[in-house]
Amino acid sequence: MEFELKSTAVGTNARAGLITTDHGQIETPIFMPVGTVGSVKGVHMPELRDDIKAQIILGNTYHLYLRPGMDIMERAGGLHKFNGWERPILTDSGGFQVFSLSGNRKLKEEGVTFRSHIDGSKHLFTPENVVDIQRIIGSDIMMALDECPPGTSDYNYAKNSLKLTQGWLERGWKHFNETEPKYGHRQAYFPIVQGCVYKDLRQDAAKHVADLGADGNAIGGLAVGEPTEMMYEMIEVVNDILPQNRPRYLMGVGTPANILEAIDRGVDMMDCVMPTRNGRNGMLFTQHGIMNMRNKKWADDFSPIQEDGASIVDHIYSKAYLRHLFVASELLAMQIASIHNLAFYLWLVGEARKHIIAGDFKSWKEEMVVNVQRRL
Amino acid sequence: MEFELKSTAVGTNARAGLITTDHGQIETPIFMPVGTVGSVKGVHMPELRDDIKAQIILGNTYHLYLRPGMDIMERAGGLHKFNGWERPILTDSGGFQVFSLSGNRKLKEEGVTFRSHIDGSKHLFTPENVVDIQRIIGSDIMMALDECPPGTSDYNYAKNSLKLTQGWLERGWKHFNETEPKYGHRQAYFPIVQGCVYKDLRQDAAKHVADLGADGNAIGGLAVGEPTEMMYEMIEVVNDILPQNRPRYLMGVGTPANILEAIDRGVDMMDCVMPTRNGRNGMLFTQHGIMNMRNKKWADDFSPIQEDGASIVDHIYSKAYLRHLFVASELLAMQIASIHNLAFYLWLVGEARKHIIAGDFKSWKEEMVVNVQRRL
Repeated sequence: MEFELKSTAVGTNARAGLITTDHGQIETPIFMPVGTVGSVKGVHMPELRDDIKAQIILGNTYHLYLRPGMDIMERAGGLHKFNGWERPILTDSGGFQVFSLSGNRKLKEEGVTFRSHIDGSKHLFTPENVVDIQRIIGSDIMMALDECPPGTSDYNYAKNSLKLTQGWLERGWKHFNETEPKYGHRQAYFPIVQGCVYKDLRQDAAKHVADLGADGNAIGGLAVGEPTEMMYEMIEVVNDILPQNRPRYLMGVGTPANILEAIDRGVDMMDCVMPTRNGRNGMLFTQHGIMNMRNKKWADDFSPIQEDGASIVDHIYSKAYLRHLFVASELLAMQIASIHNLAFYLWLVGEARKHIIAGDFKSWKEEMVVNVQRRL
Repeated sequence: MEFELKSTAVGTNARAGLITTDHGQIETPIFMPVGTVGSVKGVHMPELRDDIKAQIILGNTYHLYLRPGMDIMERAGGLHKFNGWERPILTDSGGFQVFSLSGNRKLKEEGVTFRSHIDGSKHLFTPENVVDIQRIIGSDIMMALDECPPGTSDYNYAKNSLKLTQGWLERGWKHFNETEPKYGHRQAYFPIVQGCVYKDLRQDAAKHVADLGADGNAIGGLAVGEPTEMMYEMIEVVNDILPQNRPRYLMGVGTPANILEAIDRGVDMMDCVMPTRNGRNGMLFTQHGIMNMRNKKWADDFSPIQEDGASIVDHIYSKAYLRHLFVASELLAMQIASIHNLAFYLWLVGEARKHIIAGDFKSWKEEMVVNVQRRL
C-alpha cells in the first residue's frame, strides 16, 4: 500500500491524498461503507460501485469469522472472491464487536475469549490469530486487535486498557511481519490509537503507534458516548503526533458534520453504519439537511427525493412514494434510503477533496456543517 | 386495449398474442410481478424493467386504497406517476384481500364492509366504488369486484356466492361504462369467472362473463386449496367458453409447472406472489429445478447462482455467497432471490411464447414441467 499526499489547504489540517492498493486506488478523504457480513445491507454490488461510487468497503472480522467461517472464506479465495467486490476492502480486527455484541467475554493478557452472539459457542481472539484471520479474509487493510473501553471509562481503567492494547499491538505487528498474504495481493496492517478521552494517554498511544512505521494509522475508541467537542479535541491531539505521510483512519465516525470536522483535523478515512442504519429507519442525509421520511409532511410531496442528489434513486423516486414505502414497511424503502445516504456520504467526501485542492475547504466546510445539521 | 392473437400451436390450446395498452405492449403469454402496495418487494424499478424485463405489473386496490389512500393517489396523478412505473399496470378489485386479510367483513347485496388490517377502520367496497378507486389508481386493466369463496365451499355456498358475484359484475360493468378515465389513458375492465370447483357453475359463470364482451376475461377462485388436477380441469371448462379473441387472465397462479399447464390450456396472463415470497424464504426456481438456498450443500459451491440464468444477479453472485446471505439474514439475500425468481418467470413465459410460435410448445412443455419440479 502506498499513500501520496496531494494537497493541503490553508487554515486547516485537511489533506487530499491518494492510497494505492493492489485492488485499486482510493482518493482521500474517503468514507467507507460498512459491509458487516460481506454485504452492505440493502445494496447490490453494482449499485455500490456505479451509483454510490464507493472506492473501498469494510468487512467485519468478528462477523465473517463466525459466518461463513474461515474454512469457507479460504476455499472461496478470500472475501473479494466470495462477495464479488473487486475494489479495496478494509477489515476491522473484530475487537469492537467482541466488546459490543458478544456475551461472557473475558479479557486476558493472551487475548479475549468470547461467546458467539449467534450460537453461544466459545472463541478466542488473540493479536496473532486476528492477523491470521484477516490473512484468510484477504483484506487490503487489516486492523490490529485492541480493547475498546467504554466511553465512560475512568482514567485508571483507560490506562490499564491502553497498556493491554499496546502489548497486543506489538505482538500483532510482529506476527504481521512474520506472515505472508495468501492470495498474491499486498495487505497493510494499521495500528489503532486508544486512550479514551485522556490527552496524555492519547499522546502516549499516538507516539507508540507512530513509532511502528505502519502503512497507515487509526484512531479508535471515539464516538462512543463522549461529548463531540472532546472527540474533536482527541483527534487534534492524536493527529499532531501521527505521521503526515501516512493515512489516518478515524474508526466508526459519524454524522456528516462529524465527517467534515474530522477531515478539517487531518483525518483521511472514515467508516460508519449511520448512513445505512439510520437510512433503514427513514432518516435521509443531504447537503441541505436531514429528512425524516416517515414525516407526514412528505405525504403529498411528489417532487424527486433530491433534485440535486448524487444517486439515481434521488431522481427516479418521489418523496411521497418513499414516505409511502416507509409507512408500509416495504423493503424498497430501506434499499432506497441506504443508497441515497451512502451516495451522499461519498459525494460529501468527494466535494471536501475538491475544496481542499481548490484551497477553500475551510469556508466551504463552515457553511456545509451548518447545512447538513438542519432539519428539513 | 387491444388483443391480437398471433399464433396457436399444434395439439395444445396455448396461444401467443399481443396486448396493446396506452402504456405499451405486452407479449402473451405473460407473467405479471405483484407490486402489492405499489412496489415489487425488494426490487428497484429499473431492475424490474431492464433486468427482470417485466412488461406489466400488478397493484392491489385493497392495499393502495388503505395506503397511501386515494387522496394522495389522485394528487399524484395515479399509480404510474406515483411509483414511476411507466409500463402497463393491472389492479385487482380488492375483493381477494378483503376476504383473506381483513377482519369482521360483512357481505351484503350492496357490497362488502370490512375492517382495515392496519388500523381496524371500517370501509365499504361496492362494485361501483372499486371502479371509481381503480379510476383514481389509473391502472390500464381494472378488475371487477367478486366474492372469493374458500376452496372448500360446498355447492350451495358456491352457487349463492356466484349469484352475488354475477350481480356485482353487472353493476360494476354498468358503472365502468358510465365513467371515464381520469388521466387521459384508456382503462380496460376484466370480469372474473368464479364457481369454485363445480363444472356447471364455472360454465354458467364463463357464459355470463363472455356475454359482456369485455376487453379481457379473468378466471378467479383457483389455487385456493383445491387439488391441482381440479384446477386444470376448471381452466379447461372455462376456456372452452371464454372468447378466443380476448386475453384470459388466470389470477394468483402459481408454480412454474402451474404456469406452463395454464398456458397449455389457453391462458394468456398470470400473476403470483410465489416468486417473490418464496424467494424471500430462500427458494430459487430455475429451468433445471428448485434450489433451497439455505441448504448446507451450497455452502462451498462458489459457482454463479445460475450459469445460464436470465438475470444479472445469477452471474455476479455465487451460490455460496447467496447461501451465506440467507443464513446471516441479510436484506441482499431477499433482493437477489426476488430478482432471480422474477427474471426466471419472465424467461419461462418468454420461452413458452417462442415455442408456441415455433410450433413445438407441447413437447417443450412436457419436458420443462418435469425439469422445473426437480429438487436440486
